[in-house]
Amino acid sequence: MEKNNEISISVIKRLPRYYRFLESLKENGIEKISSKELANRMGLTASQIRHDFNCFGGFGQQGYGYNVPDLYDKIGEILCVNNKVKTILIGAGNLGKALSWKLSTRANGFELIGIFDKNEAICGKMVHGLPVRHMDTLENFCIDNSPVCAVLCIPSSDMTELTKTLVKLGITSFWNFTNYDIAMAHPGVLVENVHLTDSIMTLSYLTSSKDNKIDND
Amino acid sequence: MEKNNEISISVIKRLPRYYRFLESLKENGIEKISSKELANRMGLTASQIRHDFNCFGGFGQQGYGYNVPDLYDKIGEILCVNNKVKTILIGAGNLGKALSWKLSTRANGFELIGIFDKNEAICGKMVHGLPVRHMDTLENFCIDNSPVCAVLCIPSSDMTELTKTLVKLGITSFWNFTNYDIAMAHPGVLVENVHLTDSIMTLSYLTSSKDNKIDND
Repeated sequence: MEKNNEISISVIKRLPRYYRFLESLKENGIEKISSKELANRMGLTASQIRHDFNCFGGFGQQGYGYNVPDLYDKIGEILCVNNKVKTILIGAGNLGKALSWKLSTRANGFELIGIFDKNEAICGKMVHGLPVRHMDTLENFCIDNSPVCAVLCIPSSDMTELTKTLVKLGITSFWNFTNYDIAMAHPGVLVENVHLTDSIMTLSYLTSSKDNKIDND
Repeated sequence: MEKNNEISISVIKRLPRYYRFLESLKENGIEKISSKELANRMGLTASQIRHDFNCFGGFGQQGYGYNVPDLYDKIGEILCVNNKVKTILIGAGNLGKALSWKLSTRANGFELIGIFDKNEAICGKMVHGLPVRHMDTLENFCIDNSPVCAVLCIPSSDMTELTKTLVKLGITSFWNFTNYDIAMAHPGVLVENVHLTDSIMTLSYLTSSKDNKIDND
């Protein structure tokens, strides 16, 4: 597929949403959809949808609209959901367990190959088919298995040393649930942050300031 | 504090990040900071910081910079972190447990008062000081306790009926971890979405397309 090599991060961030909507259409047996109808369902404009898809060469046929299963597959291909990028998860608490389930139950581009925690009480226990390993074994595991991505769901303290070690061991992508700013410390790596505390505080502001007009820019 | 009533959502979404950085500065004993230094640490520009703070009346003193503990408290006040908006959580799996811990261990504007699940095997068990209640008791609990916010961490199926019920019972704010588009179905309510699958798929694209130039607009 021909791709435009300069795609804005906003377009990229919308792709998983298209994918999600198309999955739901597909599950409901809908075979084709116009950009206008897709736009209505998603709260976007038809021209924005056409613009986004044109970044990847465009997928529609004039006068027909989009074939839903085809478009779903094509966006999945762009998102590389069938890749199996070797991934480790650090922190096997409740959040870590929830994320390991997310990583293991559907194609999303990653393959979880190791789970680590420093709590000896849970080391050896199985989480979605993988044993929780002690943090002391992290370095050797990485040398032997060459993971590329790390999911971090541990407290933010000690992150300076840990991320240095991980980058040295070849980790180049982070799914980061800590408050540590990995991208500032290591500008060369890819980081997707999920700041749950930021999210709940945004909701706190909105909930407690309902009378203030919010300008959704 | 004088507030500008038309504050853009982008500014609001940056506030928790300022709050997080200021907390870390405070913990490290730093008493004052210039907008330039704060900007450097956060990867922003000094003028953006001054613009953001001016939306809330500005906090700095010319030639002195910002008093860190004061600014931390003021931003916390804007974010209403000390409010205790009554909140229920639906879905007491691993993600639900992780979120109930987040909600219970630090001031963030909400007070978790009830946890619900339809799985009878876990009903009655305690999660961070609250018993897991059966979904059948949700309606009466809401009538008796008037929660305002609901945290949803359940599978996306059945969300149509559930959100209708919750809105009817007086819920006006949602912290939504499901894929269901609550804001489309109920335009009058506040929704903060955390789409974990969108997040991991964005990272998948970036990880597998490293040679493509990303235009961070």
